[in-house]
Amino acid sequence: MIRIGIDVGGTGIQIGAVDENFHIIVQDSIPTRTDLPFSEQMRQMTDCVQKMLSPASGSGLCLDDIASVGVGVPGIADREGNVIRCTNMGWENVPFRKVFTEYLDKPLFIDNDANVAALAESVAGVSKGTSSSVFITLGTGIGSGIILNGRIWSGFHGAGGELGHTILMSGGTPCTCGNRGCTERYCSATALIHMAREAVEIHPESEILTVAGSPDKINAKVVIDAAKHGDSLAEELFRRFVSYLAQTIANVVNFLDPEVIVLGGGVSKAGNFLLDAVQKEYPHYVLFNTLPLPDIKLAVLGADAGIIGASMLS
Amino acid sequence: MIRIGIDVGGTGIQIGAVDENFHIIVQDSIPTRTDLPFSEQMRQMTDCVQKMLSPASGSGLCLDDIASVGVGVPGIADREGNVIRCTNMGWENVPFRKVFTEYLDKPLFIDNDANVAALAESVAGVSKGTSSSVFITLGTGIGSGIILNGRIWSGFHGAGGELGHTILMSGGTPCTCGNRGCTERYCSATALIHMAREAVEIHPESEILTVAGSPDKINAKVVIDAAKHGDSLAEELFRRFVSYLAQTIANVVNFLDPEVIVLGGGVSKAGNFLLDAVQKEYPHYVLFNTLPLPDIKLAVLGADAGIIGASMLS
Repeated sequence: MIRIGIDVGGTGIQIGAVDENFHIIVQDSIPTRTDLPFSEQMRQMTDCVQKMLSPASGSGLCLDDIASVGVGVPGIADREGNVIRCTNMGWENVPFRKVFTEYLDKPLFIDNDANVAALAESVAGVSKGTSSSVFITLGTGIGSGIILNGRIWSGFHGAGGELGHTILMSGGTPCTCGNRGCTERYCSATALIHMAREAVEIHPESEILTVAGSPDKINAKVVIDAAKHGDSLAEELFRRFVSYLAQTIANVVNFLDPEVIVLGGGVSKAGNFLLDAVQKEYPHYVLFNTLPLPDIKLAVLGADAGIIGASMLS
Repeated sequence: MIRIGIDVGGTGIQIGAVDENFHIIVQDSIPTRTDLPFSEQMRQMTDCVQKMLSPASGSGLCLDDIASVGVGVPGIADREGNVIRCTNMGWENVPFRKVFTEYLDKPLFIDNDANVAALAESVAGVSKGTSSSVFITLGTGIGSGIILNGRIWSGFHGAGGELGHTILMSGGTPCTCGNRGCTERYCSATALIHMAREAVEIHPESEILTVAGSPDKINAKVVIDAAKHGDSLAEELFRRFVSYLAQTIANVVNFLDPEVIVLGGGVSKAGNFLLDAVQKEYPHYVLFNTLPLPDIKLAVLGADAGIIGASMLS
């Protein structure tokens, strides 16, 4: 059987048909239109699926081939298929399953996008074959998805996995959420950029600034590349970033002790340069650090994780 | 059937026979003798159980009545029944199940004492009927036990639940574990006592000092009682303590989102005075705090949780 996976994002919605080997056999996308009424958004999504299943598409698929539809959203959903909150889409308490299945009558499942990516990596990606893993996505913010006993743990109220808003520095840097000292203020891409913008004011000779051109053009890649090249300011910023990330990973390990930690998101594109630094640093912060520790691995499915993981929901 | 529960502590070992309704029907204890060889410690434990089952004990129990033996230890154990580390007992990689069952041949299960207390509360205590809960014990340090889908989650390597050593204040107060800023440096009994000892130097007029007599006699109860009486210094210290505890609870909620959080350990004896303050404070630090939140409850089984929870292990 084929399962449809839908990855809802702030700028676009990726839709794919996924086979039993977790390969995307056909894929399409539509732009995110938050200006449209909710039911119209649902109609466009289902139209995109229907198009994929029409003889004209050449996919060779028809509606009867489809076992289920899974949706990953940047927000939270309940067990009844309602999206409780999804700020980027402007959704609050919308009956996603109810309206979607009026247009396309298939079993429909929804979960948070980080959870869905975690599931994808644990079934078809780098943590394949493990029973427990925590996927940490390092991007603008920090998200996480928890897999325990092979299934997503999204919490009793569906509101878990918000690692980015656990407090790493009580009373620390103000966060967009209204609190202070949230983890994502210290080891997201945004945090690294923020550190770098402050630092180049004192060290304008750094490669960070010469490559970026101006402070507002600094991104995480520029900083990490400069660190790779041995720029001393960039090395120091990267060391601080890794220290915070290592503490965050150790917090997960000390509390939940999963089999594997998977790093994804934009910052994880730094590859082994990041991985090696984190692997070396995080055991210092783990209580039982002379025992076997969780492996840290880089996500491998990239942007496909959204579609693949969503298709696995059940 | 009857199950034996053994609660191994640094000063004494509590042993009880627990019926199907989770009542302790007979109980005994032996002193902890870390000076003895491991096999002799095992012999004393099994002797205590045998005595309980002898006709002379009047318990009416015999060996055939016993389905299993469960043991809670202040350390970590693996699935094969070895205690990997239990610092208070001086145990490191000891074959507990192997040696114990040579003296008393019953199915034997071992887990961490906080996990065991968490299980007891979730089956027979305040969180009875819930499927997920996190038990937080506030004593000399901070321990925690995680129950998910009705079962203990102790981690893939058995090293989870160390909430007290997750970092709440990166770079903060040095901890006994060698790191800095661990949660238990901010909201354990020890942390409250430490705050109070510092504060009474500047405010010797506080009830804390007049009741305790001298700074070294200050304990958590003295501080909390003074706060209850309206002593302004004690109120301020309690407010700080509650703020840290609320942030710790919110960290658990943001990451794991269990159905219930249970507070146990010595500090939880402060009762509703503590509970009300924490209930009011912790939602401020939760990301989705307009959604239904986990209940915070006080543990009800007290010291019996160790025996009862151990007896439930399987």
